[in-house]
Amino acid sequence: MRIGVVGASGYAGLELLRLLAAREGDRVTLITSRQEAGRGLTDFFPAFSAMAGYDGLKFEEPKNMAGRADVFFLATQHGAAMALVPELLDSGAKVIDLSADFRLNDSQNFKKWYAEHTAPELLGEAVYGLPELYAEGIKKARLVANPGCYPTSVILALAPAIKAKIVDYSQTLVADSKSGVTGAGRGALISNSFCEVQDNFKSYKTVGHRHGPEIVQELSKLAGDGIKLAFTPHLLPINRGILTTAYFRLKGEASLGSLRELYRDFYRDARFVRLRGEGQDPQTADVRGTNFCDIGLYHDPESGLFKAVSVLDNLCRGAAGQAVVNLNLMTGKPEAFGLDRPALRP
Amino acid sequence: MRIGVVGASGYAGLELLRLLAAREGDRVTLITSRQEAGRGLTDFFPAFSAMAGYDGLKFEEPKNMAGRADVFFLATQHGAAMALVPELLDSGAKVIDLSADFRLNDSQNFKKWYAEHTAPELLGEAVYGLPELYAEGIKKARLVANPGCYPTSVILALAPAIKAKIVDYSQTLVADSKSGVTGAGRGALISNSFCEVQDNFKSYKTVGHRHGPEIVQELSKLAGDGIKLAFTPHLLPINRGILTTAYFRLKGEASLGSLRELYRDFYRDARFVRLRGEGQDPQTADVRGTNFCDIGLYHDPESGLFKAVSVLDNLCRGAAGQAVVNLNLMTGKPEAFGLDRPALRP
Amino acid sequence: MRIGVVGASGYAGLELLRLLAAREGDRVTLITSRQEAGRGLTDFFPAFSAMAGYDGLKFEEPKNMAGRADVFFLATQHGAAMALVPELLDSGAKVIDLSADFRLNDSQNFKKWYAEHTAPELLGEAVYGLPELYAEGIKKARLVANPGCYPTSVILALAPAIKAKIVDYSQTLVADSKSGVTGAGRGALISNSFCEVQDNFKSYKTVGHRHGPEIVQELSKLAGDGIKLAFTPHLLPINRGILTTAYFRLKGEASLGSLRELYRDFYRDARFVRLRGEGQDPQTADVRGTNFCDIGLYHDPESGLFKAVSVLDNLCRGAAGQAVVNLNLMTGKPEAFGLDRPALRP
Amino acid sequence: MRIGVVGASGYAGLELLRLLAAREGDRVTLITSRQEAGRGLTDFFPAFSAMAGYDGLKFEEPKNMAGRADVFFLATQHGAAMALVPELLDSGAKVIDLSADFRLNDSQNFKKWYAEHTAPELLGEAVYGLPELYAEGIKKARLVANPGCYPTSVILALAPAIKAKIVDYSQTLVADSKSGVTGAGRGALISNSFCEVQDNFKSYKTVGHRHGPEIVQELSKLAGDGIKLAFTPHLLPINRGILTTAYFRLKGEASLGSLRELYRDFYRDARFVRLRGEGQDPQTADVRGTNFCDIGLYHDPESGLFKAVSVLDNLCRGAAGQAVVNLNLMTGKPEAFGLDRPALRP
Repeated sequence: MRIGVVGASGYAGLELLRLLAAREGDRVTLITSRQEAGRGLTDFFPAFSAMAGYDGLKFEEPKNMAGRADVFFLATQHGAAMALVPELLDSGAKVIDLSADFRLNDSQNFKKWYAEHTAPELLGEAVYGLPELYAEGIKKARLVANPGCYPTSVILALAPAIKAKIVDYSQTLVADSKSGVTGAGRGALISNSFCEVQDNFKSYKTVGHRHGPEIVQELSKLAGDGIKLAFTPHLLPINRGILTTAYFRLKGEASLGSLRELYRDFYRDARFVRLRGEGQDPQTADVRGTNFCDIGLYHDPESGLFKAVSVLDNLCRGAAGQAVVNLNLMTGKPEAFGLDRPALRP
Repeated sequence: MRIGVVGASGYAGLELLRLLAAREGDRVTLITSRQEAGRGLTDFFPAFSAMAGYDGLKFEEPKNMAGRADVFFLATQHGAAMALVPELLDSGAKVIDLSADFRLNDSQNFKKWYAEHTAPELLGEAVYGLPELYAEGIKKARLVANPGCYPTSVILALAPAIKAKIVDYSQTLVADSKSGVTGAGRGALISNSFCEVQDNFKSYKTVGHRHGPEIVQELSKLAGDGIKLAFTPHLLPINRGILTTAYFRLKGEASLGSLRELYRDFYRDARFVRLRGEGQDPQTADVRGTNFCDIGLYHDPESGLFKAVSVLDNLCRGAAGQAVVNLNLMTGKPEAFGLDRPALRP
Repeated sequence: MRIGVVGASGYAGLELLRLLAAREGDRVTLITSRQEAGRGLTDFFPAFSAMAGYDGLKFEEPKNMAGRADVFFLATQHGAAMALVPELLDSGAKVIDLSADFRLNDSQNFKKWYAEHTAPELLGEAVYGLPELYAEGIKKARLVANPGCYPTSVILALAPAIKAKIVDYSQTLVADSKSGVTGAGRGALISNSFCEVQDNFKSYKTVGHRHGPEIVQELSKLAGDGIKLAFTPHLLPINRGILTTAYFRLKGEASLGSLRELYRDFYRDARFVRLRGEGQDPQTADVRGTNFCDIGLYHDPESGLFKAVSVLDNLCRGAAGQAVVNLNLMTGKPEAFGLDRPALRP
Repeated sequence: MRIGVVGASGYAGLELLRLLAAREGDRVTLITSRQEAGRGLTDFFPAFSAMAGYDGLKFEEPKNMAGRADVFFLATQHGAAMALVPELLDSGAKVIDLSADFRLNDSQNFKKWYAEHTAPELLGEAVYGLPELYAEGIKKARLVANPGCYPTSVILALAPAIKAKIVDYSQTLVADSKSGVTGAGRGALISNSFCEVQDNFKSYKTVGHRHGPEIVQELSKLAGDGIKLAFTPHLLPINRGILTTAYFRLKGEASLGSLRELYRDFYRDARFVRLRGEGQDPQTADVRGTNFCDIGLYHDPESGLFKAVSVLDNLCRGAAGQAVVNLNLMTGKPEAFGLDRPALRP
């Protein structure tokens, strides 16, 4: 299989290349980067030297790509993907879009949070690439909209309870999320400089972050009704990792034991979700560099609320790793192909 | 004034010594540490060399202390202070206790969360040392119970709204708190080792942390009724700092503008609370090494909830700095005496 | 092949298990830990859950191990290995010792720096496991002494120049090394706690570190004569990585170009040494989690000295990764078997 | 006294403002920043809110400054200061230049490393602002060239030995220096972004850093002859701090004891140099936020070389703090005025 990575010099693109290096039989035939066009991959990113045949790859401009690969990953800024996708699909290629361009089902909603959509006719076709929810659709898809990192984290933490319709919505859902800095992408910004981030912590876009509507869309589908959720992103002084602490009330006399049982059933076949046992708090380091999402469940007798804590690696499970699972599903490979290594810890 | 610091080799004790070095006219006459007894302060902690006359100080055993100082700070483990306080008070000294021993008003509640109280007769006398709420009581106190770091952070974030009785408690309060590692004290634990904390993030004591009942006690007093609150502590890979994100619903048609006005009034005379303007997210680095608590207020139109984000330095405002303000109030000094330096940033 | 890991709950042991998870056809049949005996591996270290069949493994006491594996890795404290090795060799197993017990050739030297040796008769048989120098011996060895992390870093930086006898020893060699915290092992020490290491930097054992004599022994062999070297270790606030800056004078009119040529020849067949080009400074992050050693060479026209900068991952190339290469060589596998993934970066 | 800070929005400028906040009786009357002109200081840098009257200050363009202050600190990029200094001196003001513009005595040397000098007539007048060496000159100076951070670190580590003419120069001096990221200034560069620096370490400008000639100039003056030195800067993943490990050979039968004695004499009156005792390794955290330079001395019996390790805070002792000492000396104040607080640690 020939694979193309568009926007390969950003962190999600580089993470794709890291994971694709492990796929015997497949080959990266095209990498693009407007900023680094003409430059050798391993000159730009020496960590890939002497690995996977990457020494020969050069970044190209993202032009005339149709026919150069059988599958394209788009790891571009929001807005760029929707301009490229129609032509790539027409060429017969499959496309996995890591940007937000095809995640929102409704073009008006997309316009509100991002911009005017230029390929709205594809919004209906794109499959939301969360394998635990949509594996069947993904297997048949030409175009997969790879979920955002925060949405993956929040949805996996809440999906079983919401789907089972046991949540009491008189308590508005709260999802308090904390992300590592790679989530902001690879760019030269003072706000992401070491001296501003190190030994510091803050919330940002404390209301109005664009992953909010994506989360609400997906959870509402599961609930079968519009749900409300207060979502807050924070910036952690770590490279990789998202932890979400979700707070919710359950109807009636729900117990932690029955909630655990429910989650266990829901994720029984999920290769990349690990439910943590009692007293085992999920940690971002346990999933670093992997596609796992670890989830802990808690009941707080003082307040009566339940808590779900999920952790994942925003670059891997929250972007490139999940995209590779989608590739595997779309091409009939085992779900974990190329993703079978434990976390690097510490 | 002669000052004694009991438990001076822990992080709170050392922070007290850092702050006390700035007080012209006062003198540290006694430092104790069971672990380091006999050792010179600056041999143990060279950062204090050639400063404030500290080269001559030696740690002593915490014995026969009555009469050695006019004011005692107790920066001991929970349980040790209640054994020392009666004798020190009897000697005529004032006592500021940084441990939890005198924070809970009810001895049964103390027993539930800590241990049997050995000086319950003083629980009624001890004043909860949060200056924004209890300045008048503190000024007249012999014994001040210095608040916990998390409680300070949560209470300052919510007090104005709760006191004004505008909170709608059909939505259980949520306080999602994140703390730096110094909050765990200075001890040799694998769980606090660099390799376990660096580039990692987790919740811990995800339900049942002992600061929960302290928060509930104080907020209930402000509310005039028992309140419920879901509180979750997390461990940040930073040295100092706590950030709390609090979520709450307001009654009726409350606006962000009127909430801001309310907070501004409440903290009008508070030297060490800074309300951040619109679009200015509080950051832990802005208060590092200081007694400030910075607060941001937000309204989330999607969910209808309000958010308050507070930041403080857990060692300074959350322990030693607040204790020094209490000393100032108890001894008729200006509130900010010895605390008038800006944050070290970056 | 059945593999045993003795001392598996330390960082080097865990890193071995991380790497061994990638070996199809081989199986870890025994893991020991005196501290964690009886505990399940993935209960102790959840990062390994749902991976490589590790959920079924339990730590055992390091007793009666002969016959339980075909190859044993010893990742124990210094002193423990020499008590175990004779019996394991007698059972017909191969042994790769990651401790210092068999690195020094001379029992008197070992006694000076460590302790009385209890198996001195094996000192002559043990092969120093640095594949770039001793691949042929390693292939035939029963017992490999896996090099220390600092020695690997210093020797790889200097070996080509020293072997070629172009170094002018009127300038005493300097090796200024900086290591991440995992190098100190997994233990509860205040000196390795987050609050002491984070945002801090220091030298330690500034003279007299025990890796010094190991370096001198190996470089002297290459030089064909006793060499002198000033070696200084420092503690970096990072998890993994060693960087060594070596300073040396060359005889006559040596040029940087000819030195580069010499190194290129020396490392022509070295799968895991990467010479960096002009202007490319080696970075520890480029080798994180890998077996690579990246080397940069420099000539300083102001002082006339040459500099070699090497980086490696102390847990991987400096311990477990190199041990796995040795396993590959000892068992006829390709050198890079199980080690073919790029660095996790960032 | 009225004080102006030119280039006040960079890290050195902000550190000056932090330190100047502690000076009763003096007043900051002018702050400039081309990038932030028009913006309020505490809007830009909220850490200064409610402190030192800084809420009223606004950044201005660096124009028409003569007469606006009695003393000017120039914390500008190299090249900008030499254009401003003549006019400021003409107005009768004193000037402390934190840039490199007046550090090199020879305009040809300046041209080689920086650019054509536009005020070479002042090179002879400018006093190199290292108080331990040039206090008398500084007291009488109109123009002080504040030393670079690396040069301060290297010079203080070596000055006593070199001045005493006991160094054996057949061994070329080595100064291996490691700096925190604030040393690179406050700018938006990918190379200084959190994701590139965190958990990483490298040398940079491994040969040819511009602080090299400054060090050589000053050490040669002390030696009474041209000396040679191999200097290597490295980038530490910490905010503040420089540690230099210097290696040198002494003539004849020098002992560590006599070397210690020599340093003790040399720094007897130095308020801000602390010689560490035997077995006490200097740590950057011990000097964070202070003007101290801590020095450890070592003799390595294996190699015969001596080592001096110095630590300082690059923003404080390496820039703003030293500049404030120079201000104190130039204006007849006690050397430590406004600099009398211990390090923030941890």
